[in-house]
Amino acid sequence: MARWEPGARERLVLAAVDLFTEQGYDTTTVTQIAERAGVTKSTFFRHFADKRDLLVAGQETLSRLLTEGIAEAPAGAGPLDAVGAGLVRASSAMGPLNRELGPRIKAAVAVSEELQQRDALKSVGLAAAMTAALITRGVPDPVAALAAEIGVLAFKRGFAQWSEGDRDDDHELAPYTLAALAELRAAGAALSQV
Amino acid sequence: MARWEPGARERLVLAAVDLFTEQGYDTTTVTQIAERAGVTKSTFFRHFADKRDLLVAGQETLSRLLTEGIAEAPAGAGPLDAVGAGLVRASSAMGPLNRELGPRIKAAVAVSEELQQRDALKSVGLAAAMTAALITRGVPDPVAALAAEIGVLAFKRGFAQWSEGDRDDDHELAPYTLAALAELRAAGAALSQV
Repeated sequence: MARWEPGARERLVLAAVDLFTEQGYDTTTVTQIAERAGVTKSTFFRHFADKRDLLVAGQETLSRLLTEGIAEAPAGAGPLDAVGAGLVRASSAMGPLNRELGPRIKAAVAVSEELQQRDALKSVGLAAAMTAALITRGVPDPVAALAAEIGVLAFKRGFAQWSEGDRDDDHELAPYTLAALAELRAAGAALSQV
Repeated sequence: MARWEPGARERLVLAAVDLFTEQGYDTTTVTQIAERAGVTKSTFFRHFADKRDLLVAGQETLSRLLTEGIAEAPAGAGPLDAVGAGLVRASSAMGPLNRELGPRIKAAVAVSEELQQRDALKSVGLAAAMTAALITRGVPDPVAALAAEIGVLAFKRGFAQWSEGDRDDDHELAPYTLAALAELRAAGAALSQV
């Protein structure tokens, strides 16, 4: 299989994440990102409104896919099965770039309080969106909130295992997030018994 | 019962939260906070290192109390009972000021992305600290992570009900956070059955 070759948008994201890791989010400029990616500044602005947009663009898509999957799950599906449908929908949008970026974003976040805050707000936003989608399905409030937190944990844990594992295989993300969901479902059963 | 009278430290926190709500976190200065609280700037700096410190001081205490409560729960306590011990320890430190501030902080956070990020990072930090405290007790990883998320949800939900309810009673916080924990435990049992 030929190695995956990133286009301009992908190169910009990779360059930005590497620069954030090396010198921090705050001190990295759009000019530096474009230079590192080997494109012009005007190419940057064809793809992104600003440096911040580069990080939030993916987040909005993720939130939309998770909630769409939950909304479109069969009417009889239980809350965690609906969450599973959301995970499958969101996972299917994650390709080689996301997998390759995973450990690099983790490294960039580790050294930047600004990025830690963004990352935390992203988790909270995903949980809120999933809670709302479950409540729309008629799931009562505390159950919906808990199922949504389980969904966020499952996505994070599955994504981490997928992106930190052997990236030369061509495994998709969905089996990883579904395995994490099954593990958390079992953990929930264990917790309710003690 | 006499109305509770705040001291300088408490007046500074109240003034800051009101100013954050009125004009945003970024544009509020230490000078304005001190003026509104009716104290000098040097009094401000006797209590807090800077504007940011005013928000994070309480968070560190909360995290410490939650994890101490978990660590000191009886050896035979299950994960959620240990979380309950953490909630009791942390709740006991919350008095009239915290109760009065609850809705005001919520209003300030609602209008400030900066404060939303801080608030989100606080939740993530509390969950990580509780997960670590549970793992130290020998709780296996996915169960610990889930129990910690349940603990954070229970604290947030219990605190919201306590601070948004009738604040003229002298109820303590602990029964609210423990009731929220019981509700989430039942939600977990419901989720694992479907």
